[in-house]
Amino acid sequence: MLRNVKRPADAIDEQRLWRRQMELARFGARPDGGVNRQALSAEDIAARRQLIAWATARGFACSVDSIGNLFVRRAGRNPDAAPVLTGSHLDSQPAGGKFDGAYGVMAGLEALEALEDLGISTERPIELVAWCNEEGGRFPPGAMGSAAYGGAQKLDDLLAIRDWEGVTVEAALRTTLAATPEAPLRTLGGKPAAYVEAHIEQGPLLEAARTTIGVVTGIQGAQWYHVEVIGSEAHAGTAPLKTRRDALKAAMAMIAALEQLMADETDTVRFTVGRFDVTPNSTNTVPGRVLFTIDFRHPDAAVLARLGGAIEGVCRAHARGCEVHVSKTLDMSPIRFDAAIQQRIDFTAGELGLSRMAIASGAFHDAKYMNPLCPSGMIFVPCEKGISHNPVENATAGDLAAGARVLVEVLLQLAGQ
Amino acid sequence: MLRNVKRPADAIDEQRLWRRQMELARFGARPDGGVNRQALSAEDIAARRQLIAWATARGFACSVDSIGNLFVRRAGRNPDAAPVLTGSHLDSQPAGGKFDGAYGVMAGLEALEALEDLGISTERPIELVAWCNEEGGRFPPGAMGSAAYGGAQKLDDLLAIRDWEGVTVEAALRTTLAATPEAPLRTLGGKPAAYVEAHIEQGPLLEAARTTIGVVTGIQGAQWYHVEVIGSEAHAGTAPLKTRRDALKAAMAMIAALEQLMADETDTVRFTVGRFDVTPNSTNTVPGRVLFTIDFRHPDAAVLARLGGAIEGVCRAHARGCEVHVSKTLDMSPIRFDAAIQQRIDFTAGELGLSRMAIASGAFHDAKYMNPLCPSGMIFVPCEKGISHNPVENATAGDLAAGARVLVEVLLQLAGQ
Repeated sequence: MLRNVKRPADAIDEQRLWRRQMELARFGARPDGGVNRQALSAEDIAARRQLIAWATARGFACSVDSIGNLFVRRAGRNPDAAPVLTGSHLDSQPAGGKFDGAYGVMAGLEALEALEDLGISTERPIELVAWCNEEGGRFPPGAMGSAAYGGAQKLDDLLAIRDWEGVTVEAALRTTLAATPEAPLRTLGGKPAAYVEAHIEQGPLLEAARTTIGVVTGIQGAQWYHVEVIGSEAHAGTAPLKTRRDALKAAMAMIAALEQLMADETDTVRFTVGRFDVTPNSTNTVPGRVLFTIDFRHPDAAVLARLGGAIEGVCRAHARGCEVHVSKTLDMSPIRFDAAIQQRIDFTAGELGLSRMAIASGAFHDAKYMNPLCPSGMIFVPCEKGISHNPVENATAGDLAAGARVLVEVLLQLAGQ
Repeated sequence: MLRNVKRPADAIDEQRLWRRQMELARFGARPDGGVNRQALSAEDIAARRQLIAWATARGFACSVDSIGNLFVRRAGRNPDAAPVLTGSHLDSQPAGGKFDGAYGVMAGLEALEALEDLGISTERPIELVAWCNEEGGRFPPGAMGSAAYGGAQKLDDLLAIRDWEGVTVEAALRTTLAATPEAPLRTLGGKPAAYVEAHIEQGPLLEAARTTIGVVTGIQGAQWYHVEVIGSEAHAGTAPLKTRRDALKAAMAMIAALEQLMADETDTVRFTVGRFDVTPNSTNTVPGRVLFTIDFRHPDAAVLARLGGAIEGVCRAHARGCEVHVSKTLDMSPIRFDAAIQQRIDFTAGELGLSRMAIASGAFHDAKYMNPLCPSGMIFVPCEKGISHNPVENATAGDLAAGARVLVEVLLQLAGQ
């Protein structure tokens, strides 16, 4: 077979992609096999330097914007055309894995390499981006880089955010940019021709369906609430139960009633009480205060509104004499990705003989902030047991390569051969 | 009226007693009006020095034993007779009040002062004791001093216990004893003729019944459990509810079922879940592990055994696919105080025109460890709204004085005029 009759999907090098995933995982490697590579940390800087080294070795130009998004550009024939953008993020949760985010960046790099290996030129430039601070663990909120790029958040507000030690985003960025002089500063923002992000599913559906490619239809909406329950502290030995205002037992009654509210035979609603803080949290003291969080998600905006609107009433109805304060701390509408991008992913996966299915993203992604700017979409690949945000997060080399094969073909279609 | 026809109850000085309560509360005073005077701390040492100063000013002899119990002795006519013992403790909870423990010591001192004021001599010596470390906040377990005195715990084991900073009881005691040279070392233990302890109720029953004196019948039994629930962490956005093993929701189901188990129309069972620790305790992560505690109490040993025996089965029945580990961390049998002491307290309160009622102690007290050694009893006085272990703990000067009036009369009867 002649080299130039190969299609780019065939030039995806499974071994090279896997090796780079593993090399990247050394930056912030945890003893348990996971990764702790928080945004703008020394580990993140080292990972950025590695990406720049790989990119410049192939002659790709690097640049960085004023919120720390790092770009790798493979030029097109028309330098004035809006680029096709792909990527994800290099930062991880404190107890994160090797693939969340990192895969989307490595798959994008592998796509550029495959095009380069085949000597294929494109009309539009293709740019790979490593969005800054998607996880938000060190500097909340997450998806900071894509939010600033898309104009959803103001740069100055983001630069002033501090981590637990009081370090600002601005100071951490200064250190980061100084350590990556090969990437000159570029203007923040832009309007790409399209955006396609590859990512591990972070859920169990593809694996359960023995399906390789998830054609992502959109990102479900989410609401977060803080529920503060204020009762009275009392001595566990002396206070009769009838006189108590036990904040813990009231909170439990609320959560049991919320489970009823959120009950869903289709198992589409995601209802989680993830945080539960008791004061004073002592064996022999009746809890005087509980703060718990609600995270619930659904792809349908009407369902989100109906359930979210019922939460405060349900909590009040089960307060058992305690004070209740319910506040909404997050309200993200569901988004739907561009239908044409979904069709391209679906069709291309079929052409390549890969099993695929439509799937809604349960997690947030940077693609959320690209969707209003340009036709956007995501390609999911399975991860082991659906486990993510966890050191044991895992995926197979074959599935990662399959996702990259779909990605490079779709990028090539969008960039124009 | 001639001075020596006064009865000792009449010599109780309400103002002096109240003033001393307030003076004592300066040691470890918190900005919120409460007291933080943990065992063998600088604040505890200062309170001990103040007690010694008050005692020696009246010519009472002080001594301290090898676990740090501080004694004040008013001599009797027969130096070889076993003393009548009264007292309580000077240490407080970290967020404690002015009266828990401190009242029993101040009431005992006031009783000695009243006898001294009237020049009444007794056959037996009367000793006031400030038991070391009743609260157990810094060095668990509590009631350390009385347990060592009564032989329920070994001195060497207790001396080796460390606080959060690694300081041993032995080291803290050495500092304490060096700071109180006016109190020479005495032999640990003994067999008093009787023990009577005055204390605020720490519950709401006396106040609710508008009754001044609680004739304490005994101390209810208690069992403590740790329940560990192990599920799996999962992403709140992606994991379908049917696939989850949510440790928090399983723990809630267990606690709801335990509430059913412990349901009691007579409101005698005290059932508390005071501590509830969630891992990783993050809004968007399904909890993988919960540790919660159970504290339940009842005056009847058979009820304690029946309910305690059912706990593990109830937890397992509501585990929702999670692992469960139930372990008993405390098992205290109920105790009954000496009937004759109860009768003396009851009769004396009646003689003094004070309302009184029989009451079981919901909280532990040092009297627990005296009960096996000698006829023992307790006198309760009301505290505001039953609130204790709390900076707002409060009591009236009149009620405190009433308790001291009963105490001094009972001590005199027991010591022999």
